[in-house]
Amino acid sequence: MLDYKLLEALGAVMHHQGFERAARHLGLTQSAVSQRIKLLEARLGQPVLVRGNVPEATDLGRRLLNHVQQVQLLEEELTTSLPQFAGTERHLRVAINADSISTWWPEAMGTFMRDHPMTLDLVIEDQDVGLQRMRHGEVAACLCASQQPVQGTRVVALGKMRYRSLAHPEFVKRYLPDGPTAKDLARSPAIVFDLNDQLQHRCLAEFGIAGPFPHHFCASTEGFIQLVRAGIGWGMMPELQVANLIETGELVDLVPGYYLDVPLYWHYWRLGGESLDALARHLEREARRVLVQDDV
Amino acid sequence: MLDYKLLEALGAVMHHQGFERAARHLGLTQSAVSQRIKLLEARLGQPVLVRGNVPEATDLGRRLLNHVQQVQLLEEELTTSLPQFAGTERHLRVAINADSISTWWPEAMGTFMRDHPMTLDLVIEDQDVGLQRMRHGEVAACLCASQQPVQGTRVVALGKMRYRSLAHPEFVKRYLPDGPTAKDLARSPAIVFDLNDQLQHRCLAEFGIAGPFPHHFCASTEGFIQLVRAGIGWGMMPELQVANLIETGELVDLVPGYYLDVPLYWHYWRLGGESLDALARHLEREARRVLVQDDV
Repeated sequence: MLDYKLLEALGAVMHHQGFERAARHLGLTQSAVSQRIKLLEARLGQPVLVRGNVPEATDLGRRLLNHVQQVQLLEEELTTSLPQFAGTERHLRVAINADSISTWWPEAMGTFMRDHPMTLDLVIEDQDVGLQRMRHGEVAACLCASQQPVQGTRVVALGKMRYRSLAHPEFVKRYLPDGPTAKDLARSPAIVFDLNDQLQHRCLAEFGIAGPFPHHFCASTEGFIQLVRAGIGWGMMPELQVANLIETGELVDLVPGYYLDVPLYWHYWRLGGESLDALARHLEREARRVLVQDDV
Repeated sequence: MLDYKLLEALGAVMHHQGFERAARHLGLTQSAVSQRIKLLEARLGQPVLVRGNVPEATDLGRRLLNHVQQVQLLEEELTTSLPQFAGTERHLRVAINADSISTWWPEAMGTFMRDHPMTLDLVIEDQDVGLQRMRHGEVAACLCASQQPVQGTRVVALGKMRYRSLAHPEFVKRYLPDGPTAKDLARSPAIVFDLNDQLQHRCLAEFGIAGPFPHHFCASTEGFIQLVRAGIGWGMMPELQVANLIETGELVDLVPGYYLDVPLYWHYWRLGGESLDALARHLEREARRVLVQDDV
């Protein structure tokens, strides 16, 4: 069998982003951790990570990490079912898109965790980076808009998140006095999450606006909402997240009746154990209540 | 004088994180942008950036960027005061901590922007990284918890943000049935923003808890709140952000009466022009209304 002491050291260095933190976590000296990594590399005849300010796994290192994390999940599965191991902590690392962590996912997760105690390590990532992390074995599950499966994983369709073009009423009055005309829309400053966020572009494209438009960047969902509330710009926002602001009239549709549905998928390791399977079923059920579902 | 065409190309490549995007923005071909960078490097006899998936500026490149951004700000100052240049767009890049962008800052900024139109590029960063970006000339202003001035900048003290240890009432009932005893606190799962977030550690340290404690990681302020609302953990949260949840009783103090005040500072370029000065005065005034101020 592989020497799991060495693999555990590798996992800790990557997870805690450094030798010193990994050592603290494992209760070892930094030099002991370093020696374990060196021994692992000597045995394999290849480096497993690139030393730097933040260590980065090599391809080989990633494959080992993927493996060791799956083993850890299976181990947790085993230990939680055996009373001898009571108290052993189960740990789940998930890549999740910003809009899901800001809306329905925590509550759905909270009900699951009542019967399945665990600690969460949530990595807020866009879909592409999230799936890449799955591929590299850095996370055991990923919630994102891409259906594309990663080798060794299962995919569950959860439903769609509905986005509406929203703004402060004063903003609409100021920038679109004659309603949503293409000319005025092209001049109205938008809020854009980051360079990957194309939702505002897609809305404008409906009006034939393909060129540049004035926009602010803000890669924080809460900041995004606050900028829109402050009348600084308009933006595509999950209906789910701002339902109360729409209800009170604090936010109104920039383009009445317009919306975009973004599908969401839950990816998880096939060999991650029974509780990952149970979690997938649970999320599927919960999502059905809150996300837009295709007509059956 | 320096050749600003070349410097503009460097600025665009760094700002848009790539040659292709920079080219699109400048209305040039990718090879024209590449040639400008090469010419700049040939004249200086040193590389200005490291080519990679995402280009990185060298030390020399950073000093040039810093300079070109200051020139751009001064230029905008000039052009907005001259009717000939009406319509020229003013652009402000700011590093800001997640809790400020989620609370008071957007509204304060909104009132300023009514008289000072501009587009914002907000980089959500922890204090240390934010100040580093200032030092490197990547942002013109930075809102963070560090008072330490950066060369060439001014610093304004804004006041303090108050954090309280909050949780769902059910969570408190379940984990702290006998009140906030050290034993039970050390076992109650916390939510931690990221590896730099020490607020929960500082709260626990008050109870003599110095070792590891169960915790979930979630680097999204909105996700953080949702996890606490879902009863998954407790966390230190800005009073400002969850005032309504405290009022309705949806969130309660884990340790009644306990709070932490985190000071906030606005750093900005000294030579950034009159409107950066005006913005600093405006934010100072607005912050006085919403942040905790030291007794005078």
